[in-house]
Amino acid sequence: MRLLDELDSIKKLHEMNLQELRELAKEIRELILSTVAENGGHLAPSLGTVELTLALYSVFDFETDKLIWDVGHQAYTHKILTGRKDLFHTLRKRGGLAGFPKISESKYDAFGVGHASTSISAALGILIASELKKKNNRVVAVIGDGALTGGEAFEGLNHAGQLKKNLIVIVNDNEMSIDKNVGALSEYLSQIRLAPQYRKAKRDFEELVKKIPIAGLSDKILTAAKSVRVGLKSAIVQGAMFEVLGFTYLGPVDGHDIKAMQEIFTRVKEEMTEPVIIHVRTTKGKGYKPAEESPERFHGVGKFDKFTGEIIKKSAPKTYTEIFSKAIVDCAKEDEKIVAITAAMPGGTGLKFFAEKFPERFFDVGIAEEHAMTLAAGMAAGGLHPVVALYSTFAQRSYDQILHDICLQNLPVTICLDRAGIVGEDGATHHGVFDFSYLRHIPNINILAPKDENELRQMIFTATIKKFPTVIRYPRGAGLGVKIIDNPENLSWGKAEIISKVSGEADATIFAIGSMVEVAKNTADILKNMKIYVNVVNARFVKPLDENVIYGLSRDSKLIVTCEENVIAGGFGSAIVEFLADVNITKPILRFGISDNFVEHASRSELLKDCGLTAENIAEKIYNRVVKMN
Amino acid sequence: MRLLDELDSIKKLHEMNLQELRELAKEIRELILSTVAENGGHLAPSLGTVELTLALYSVFDFETDKLIWDVGHQAYTHKILTGRKDLFHTLRKRGGLAGFPKISESKYDAFGVGHASTSISAALGILIASELKKKNNRVVAVIGDGALTGGEAFEGLNHAGQLKKNLIVIVNDNEMSIDKNVGALSEYLSQIRLAPQYRKAKRDFEELVKKIPIAGLSDKILTAAKSVRVGLKSAIVQGAMFEVLGFTYLGPVDGHDIKAMQEIFTRVKEEMTEPVIIHVRTTKGKGYKPAEESPERFHGVGKFDKFTGEIIKKSAPKTYTEIFSKAIVDCAKEDEKIVAITAAMPGGTGLKFFAEKFPERFFDVGIAEEHAMTLAAGMAAGGLHPVVALYSTFAQRSYDQILHDICLQNLPVTICLDRAGIVGEDGATHHGVFDFSYLRHIPNINILAPKDENELRQMIFTATIKKFPTVIRYPRGAGLGVKIIDNPENLSWGKAEIISKVSGEADATIFAIGSMVEVAKNTADILKNMKIYVNVVNARFVKPLDENVIYGLSRDSKLIVTCEENVIAGGFGSAIVEFLADVNITKPILRFGISDNFVEHASRSELLKDCGLTAENIAEKIYNRVVKMN
Repeated sequence: MRLLDELDSIKKLHEMNLQELRELAKEIRELILSTVAENGGHLAPSLGTVELTLALYSVFDFETDKLIWDVGHQAYTHKILTGRKDLFHTLRKRGGLAGFPKISESKYDAFGVGHASTSISAALGILIASELKKKNNRVVAVIGDGALTGGEAFEGLNHAGQLKKNLIVIVNDNEMSIDKNVGALSEYLSQIRLAPQYRKAKRDFEELVKKIPIAGLSDKILTAAKSVRVGLKSAIVQGAMFEVLGFTYLGPVDGHDIKAMQEIFTRVKEEMTEPVIIHVRTTKGKGYKPAEESPERFHGVGKFDKFTGEIIKKSAPKTYTEIFSKAIVDCAKEDEKIVAITAAMPGGTGLKFFAEKFPERFFDVGIAEEHAMTLAAGMAAGGLHPVVALYSTFAQRSYDQILHDICLQNLPVTICLDRAGIVGEDGATHHGVFDFSYLRHIPNINILAPKDENELRQMIFTATIKKFPTVIRYPRGAGLGVKIIDNPENLSWGKAEIISKVSGEADATIFAIGSMVEVAKNTADILKNMKIYVNVVNARFVKPLDENVIYGLSRDSKLIVTCEENVIAGGFGSAIVEFLADVNITKPILRFGISDNFVEHASRSELLKDCGLTAENIAEKIYNRVVKMN
Repeated sequence: MRLLDELDSIKKLHEMNLQELRELAKEIRELILSTVAENGGHLAPSLGTVELTLALYSVFDFETDKLIWDVGHQAYTHKILTGRKDLFHTLRKRGGLAGFPKISESKYDAFGVGHASTSISAALGILIASELKKKNNRVVAVIGDGALTGGEAFEGLNHAGQLKKNLIVIVNDNEMSIDKNVGALSEYLSQIRLAPQYRKAKRDFEELVKKIPIAGLSDKILTAAKSVRVGLKSAIVQGAMFEVLGFTYLGPVDGHDIKAMQEIFTRVKEEMTEPVIIHVRTTKGKGYKPAEESPERFHGVGKFDKFTGEIIKKSAPKTYTEIFSKAIVDCAKEDEKIVAITAAMPGGTGLKFFAEKFPERFFDVGIAEEHAMTLAAGMAAGGLHPVVALYSTFAQRSYDQILHDICLQNLPVTICLDRAGIVGEDGATHHGVFDFSYLRHIPNINILAPKDENELRQMIFTATIKKFPTVIRYPRGAGLGVKIIDNPENLSWGKAEIISKVSGEADATIFAIGSMVEVAKNTADILKNMKIYVNVVNARFVKPLDENVIYGLSRDSKLIVTCEENVIAGGFGSAIVEFLADVNITKPILRFGISDNFVEHASRSELLKDCGLTAENIAEKIYNRVVKMN
């Protein structure tokens, strides 16, 4: 019988002794490991916080106290402890547990998360609400050292420090964000670990002074020295950064030593009323050797063999990430103006390869998308051509910088958005389904999406020789498996590709973009069997639109259809509808895309089906409409 | 003859002696004062940096060195020194000098600015570009203590500190952002000013030790003490915050003492190769008593009497800001769940009044829009109803937080966006013309815009009792002067108001939103005289649209017209066009709004005319189209 099986209430964690908690940690680790090996998920972060979570639950009372996880990819233990252990096998599955905390999933999920650096702000808000409602509960935020590099975390600390409220912030310092952590702040956290040296120096000094054989002088000198040194403990040793911002700093404490954490948490709970930072050091992937050794590889991972740590790869075509990874290196070989920027994602975006080839032209700014864009704008103003590679969903953080720093100045920056469209198991916080809509209305911007790997390569080659801002967005995962042309021709800017055209008036023209071009081709095939004849256009550009092609083919079609892997409001189909209105083409239009809801988690193919983005569904809808019109 | 008249090259500033520079400062101050008294502008910030700018120009060579101003509202001296003194009287006028640095205006404007906290990132980018191009120039960023509270500034510092490049950051510390500065960082900057106390303690200690009458012991103790203290200078006294981030800290230095600044700048220029922070203390409004005494009032100011400091107010109806200011207090009296948040703009947004009435329910977070939104989400998750008041253009910074933290969780937050639409003289960086487009596609959001003051009041009353996120946006400046109803009824959610309806089929229906409703009414009047009969609808809601009204009236009209003070791509008209496509209404549509360009600076009425958003233009275009159709 596992301890876990008897755990029917978080209250029981208060009663468990240290040995039981350690045993529980083992059981939880095993559950996380076997589940993630099967379902995929954020293994290394969650293995790193097992003891931290247990220590928190054994001291605080999260029936009333509130716990906010930054990003939330480290919260599996939290989910298991709070009534979800029996559902844990459904993690990241359709209808199952989400990969991140979510208010609607459990009352213990105090705040929904996914994007980094929000926990301090959210926790402060929850604390203020508690105070105004005269509740007396504690609020704890757990934030990784990686997420601390995000500007919003600093904004939150700065405000919380000033308000002097009893916010408890735990810095989960594993010297990593997703890839190895960067930034001076990270170096500073390393410095703190050298504190014993300071303590030794002080001891030496004191022993020396105490030897002075003159009555009373030793004490006088020690007192004088103390007043010189008075700020030192709080500044250097105890976390200058945080003390400056108004927090009391405690730590570092070993994040795998439950007893040590319990002591410090108890002290904070019982004695402190001010804002507190507790610096906890953990090892990402703790307890599972393959993950400890390659925490990047096991940060977010697919199915793997839990005994060997081998990641189970289905044989699949190259991913879009891989195509980007090579293409950008090829471009950079030709043009030394090209530099590359990423935000803590050299691995995920594929820029790792660029970083190896051109270390002096590569910049990982940490989880700091805003800075990434303005940095790029500055580089471009200085004559370079920066390529910024991010995930679509995280680029949302830099909307204002794309608009105000890059596009307003019409600077040559190429923004490559990976994981655009439905991402699958990571769910609502991670789908990159808004980029067309939040970018399309920005003057001077150019927005492209490739139908396949070759086209991605062409787009990268073409965009990086342009003197204006371009966004290229492409989906998560494998391409179509098309043969890669070694020397791609440059694309004609703003020109669509007519994939197939019926002679005379068509029943419909499908304007598709990106991943939906292949779907549109299949749709046309299905319809052909039903004697419905449609044109298929690969739009390539959301902006500028190929107005000639759209105008011409729309006039020659009974029905106009748009397909995109983006929200339907304000996106590609919206651009087409706007254009048709402006040129006074008044024809029936069907738009396919993601309707006005947040999309939950499930596999990419399940979700595309849910969203109606399959050839079968599109063909059916077109068929019904065309039949009605005839 | 003024020195200013002889100044035909910035090189001359290197040759001027101190007395001449001081004389020049006087002349510049007078020029700024008389120009801004006439044209309006950012008086207090620019008066505060006259000596700082002169000291910079007398030491650095900005023919090759690069100078980046954060926000840029303090850069008037910079503009005057760099060949623009004779054009200075055109400041903020149509076709004249912009109120902010702008790449296209001068080669000395190294980077265009307007929104806060971008300068460090941009400067770092420019420095990297210089290095890769093997240029050996210096790059200087000047950032206010207010802008330092923005997370992006922290992201930039963190990255720059790690790269260890020779970036020179000048912190222009005037203890203000726009209103009085907030945040623990500000408190910390105050602490630094206490450094003399530390120096005295150290002196006392050393004198005591030196008195020890044992050969060699004094020295030994001093050495030991030094090794204990070794980090102290850099930490507490010399700017822990910045040192922690990898910068060498110098200062504080008096920002009105040209000589003191020259010394420190020269030392930095000649001796230092690492990232440097120079802490300069200035007085906002320096040299003009009314501005020194009320720097908030003279931050950004309209026409005023330069002798008395009296601001020249045209008699005008109450502003939307004033209406909001009172309405939100009235709501808060009724409902204690209502709390208010602003980002360094209690005055500008009108929340000052709320802050006085409900200090414990008011939160000024500093220039930290991202934190503001997540804080609000946290408060809402904790059971409150936060009202976040920002300018539309600055809310762009928080797009991701609005989406990911507020809307994804469908939390009850009311976001009030002032200065939406064309703002006038502040120009391209400040127009709030994107909000409909960057918000409309977010699921769960509600977007409203009032036609007049009464409706704003109603919208605020109604939104704050709802359990979901709402954005209300309203224009800069005076309302229409309608009578304010004391007890406004709540609005029917999602319902448009039919202002006028012709019987039978109309020539056109104009769907207008916000400020354009009044224009649409006038348009209808003009058209009536030309025997064109149109319906006029006040849409009130961009989301949810009143589909019944839109469907019904569109079916009964020959032409459909949309009007909005927003970019035409992805905005309100786009929503109408999408809806009509979805319900298969295939009629001609004319959309009025801001076309796909950034709008420059001029008066609001000039710009509205430029954008075609006048009753005359809209009537003409409708007339031409209707005539063609008949």
